[in-house]
Amino acid sequence: MLIATPQSMQFAAVLPLQSGATLRDYSLSFETYGTLNADKSNAVLICHALNASHHVAGTYAGQDKSEGWWDNMIGPGKPLDTNKFFVIGVNNLGSCFGSTGPMHVNPDTGRVYGADFPVVTVEDWVNAQARLLDALGIQTLAAVMGGSLGGMQALSWTLQYPDRVRHAVVVASAPNLTAENIAFNEVARRAIVTDPDFHGGHFYEHGVVPKRGLRIARMIGHITYLSDDVMNEKFGRKLRQTVLAQSGDKPQREGGVDGYKYSTQDVEFQIESYLRYQGDKFAEYFDANTYLLITRALDYFDPARTYGDLSHALARATAKFLLVSFTTDWRFAPKRSREIVKALLDNRRDVSYAEIDAPHGHDAFLLDDPRYMGVVRSYFDSVAKEGRP
Amino acid sequence: MLIATPQSMQFAAVLPLQSGATLRDYSLSFETYGTLNADKSNAVLICHALNASHHVAGTYAGQDKSEGWWDNMIGPGKPLDTNKFFVIGVNNLGSCFGSTGPMHVNPDTGRVYGADFPVVTVEDWVNAQARLLDALGIQTLAAVMGGSLGGMQALSWTLQYPDRVRHAVVVASAPNLTAENIAFNEVARRAIVTDPDFHGGHFYEHGVVPKRGLRIARMIGHITYLSDDVMNEKFGRKLRQTVLAQSGDKPQREGGVDGYKYSTQDVEFQIESYLRYQGDKFAEYFDANTYLLITRALDYFDPARTYGDLSHALARATAKFLLVSFTTDWRFAPKRSREIVKALLDNRRDVSYAEIDAPHGHDAFLLDDPRYMGVVRSYFDSVAKEGRP
Repeated sequence: MLIATPQSMQFAAVLPLQSGATLRDYSLSFETYGTLNADKSNAVLICHALNASHHVAGTYAGQDKSEGWWDNMIGPGKPLDTNKFFVIGVNNLGSCFGSTGPMHVNPDTGRVYGADFPVVTVEDWVNAQARLLDALGIQTLAAVMGGSLGGMQALSWTLQYPDRVRHAVVVASAPNLTAENIAFNEVARRAIVTDPDFHGGHFYEHGVVPKRGLRIARMIGHITYLSDDVMNEKFGRKLRQTVLAQSGDKPQREGGVDGYKYSTQDVEFQIESYLRYQGDKFAEYFDANTYLLITRALDYFDPARTYGDLSHALARATAKFLLVSFTTDWRFAPKRSREIVKALLDNRRDVSYAEIDAPHGHDAFLLDDPRYMGVVRSYFDSVAKEGRP
Repeated sequence: MLIATPQSMQFAAVLPLQSGATLRDYSLSFETYGTLNADKSNAVLICHALNASHHVAGTYAGQDKSEGWWDNMIGPGKPLDTNKFFVIGVNNLGSCFGSTGPMHVNPDTGRVYGADFPVVTVEDWVNAQARLLDALGIQTLAAVMGGSLGGMQALSWTLQYPDRVRHAVVVASAPNLTAENIAFNEVARRAIVTDPDFHGGHFYEHGVVPKRGLRIARMIGHITYLSDDVMNEKFGRKLRQTVLAQSGDKPQREGGVDGYKYSTQDVEFQIESYLRYQGDKFAEYFDANTYLLITRALDYFDPARTYGDLSHALARATAKFLLVSFTTDWRFAPKRSREIVKALLDNRRDVSYAEIDAPHGHDAFLLDDPRYMGVVRSYFDSVAKEGRP
């Protein structure tokens, strides 16, 4: 069993951001799993997506249910094997899980940042991650890996620090957001910003949290993480059972003779119950300003824009690539991964691509599909063998 | 030019609703175009979707920009030709465009209905429409026609009143909502219901409108009406231009040297600007309780549930059908129309089906695609010729 230990590192030097703003006296939370080898050649950096953190694998001592968010993928004997690799999880700047973010005090003002936390980009996160690696004495990564927004960071690593990355594993990702992707982000942000409890992003001072907005944001998110198919299979048009108070009684439904309650506000269908539950849970722990920052980082990421076009961008990359997409992912559809593959091939780069026939939509990148796990396992097996006789 | 004249009809008799509740002393707003022939055999009823009304075609006298919502489809010489047909548009119960709805006074209490307006279903609307036809002296419709939710009503007409409908034209519709469809409705409803200005649906008494919720609801709706492709074509990742005050100056963008503003709350992309505009506009005129009622009518509609399965349901129908779907419509995808076609063929019914290759998503049913218009035109041409020597 892998026991995880969260660590934190403080950075005094100013970090220049893409926007022109700067951050100073910030800290990054991180975890490591496995052992760094003598020549420091076996480090793998894991980049996280919207609702995740540095706690990638293992559990915390004495907390059984505290598995890291990619614990099925990473650990001893797992596809990314911590018996072979030294794996680093890091929480991004602006997040709400430990690294410096909107809930922390701005050293320039002595006040909590709130909405004044500067906009951070994928590129800024990669720069901060590179400084963490400097501090850990790691010059070159065996691999950088991430799914979704994490995949964008992995991709950006190969452009910003091409000589520090030997492999990039980019899962369920895209070279930029489509208009529809931005649209969903924008609706979620408007729900948060227009919640009267948001107070222009300085809600901490008012002792409230814009939970209404966070709930809506999360509900919208969940719809885009799942496929239409898996929603139909899991929930379909099934009505919610009302469980009676007396145990042993068969669950029954209240309501009319035909089973409908005929209400616009009560939960009628199971899918409604599921979404409300997900929204409620999220609003209890996620920071509203972090939500805005992370969705904006997604919106802004666009190496094609930075470097002229995607092929031109990827001419910078020298890493070898594994790309994985999932057939029913309509948030970051396979064609988006294929754009990256094409741009790599345009530059005659070494790229493997697996399009996994999985029903779970975007969420598939976090789930246990045996073909998916198999592809990642063989890729890392061959990475582990590199340079050996 | 077709001049439209809104009319209203009062109904004193109690209307029993599917929920078990009743409505009494209600009125229906409607318009008619063209002339009812002597044997009253040329009437076509148009059923509307979420954000529409009885004002289907023509303009109001002296109001140039007041075209009905299906004015491209219906009028003299148009695909549904009012020189041949007597076309009726009717506003549904619970709507906010004239027929009795949540903004009106409940005769039982003397108070505005608000959230106490009873839940109405597609079947209830069809029953109310049938009473309107009774009052107009029309026994049998040459055709009933609708798009989206309107198509569900057209479909339901053929099940509830099989001997009163000769043809049903069902465009961009579905035999019921999927879990994903319900999910989008539910998020929109939660945005409205949790807006502090909703006041449990009795906001009229407080002199406020839950505009925040309505805006979010409409933004979500708009995303589902458009295809990913048309959004990319129309907006893509284009940034919003800031137009300078001095005319003649070239539009410019404020913000950083690279063109981004680096803001989480300002409009950065054109798609954001478009959605905010649509949300703002909608919140100015649409009623929040109506939004809840209409989305719930969508959720509940399910003839397969009512009659066992869809084939069994459509065994009741004796009308001839035209079904039309659009390839990029992901809200009511072509496969949903094909389910209806299959169930009709199971019963050896007369059905024509056109799957139109159009880029505009669900919205296509309101737009001028020449193939779509052509299909509807030829269908109605042959309806007009029926019974003639």
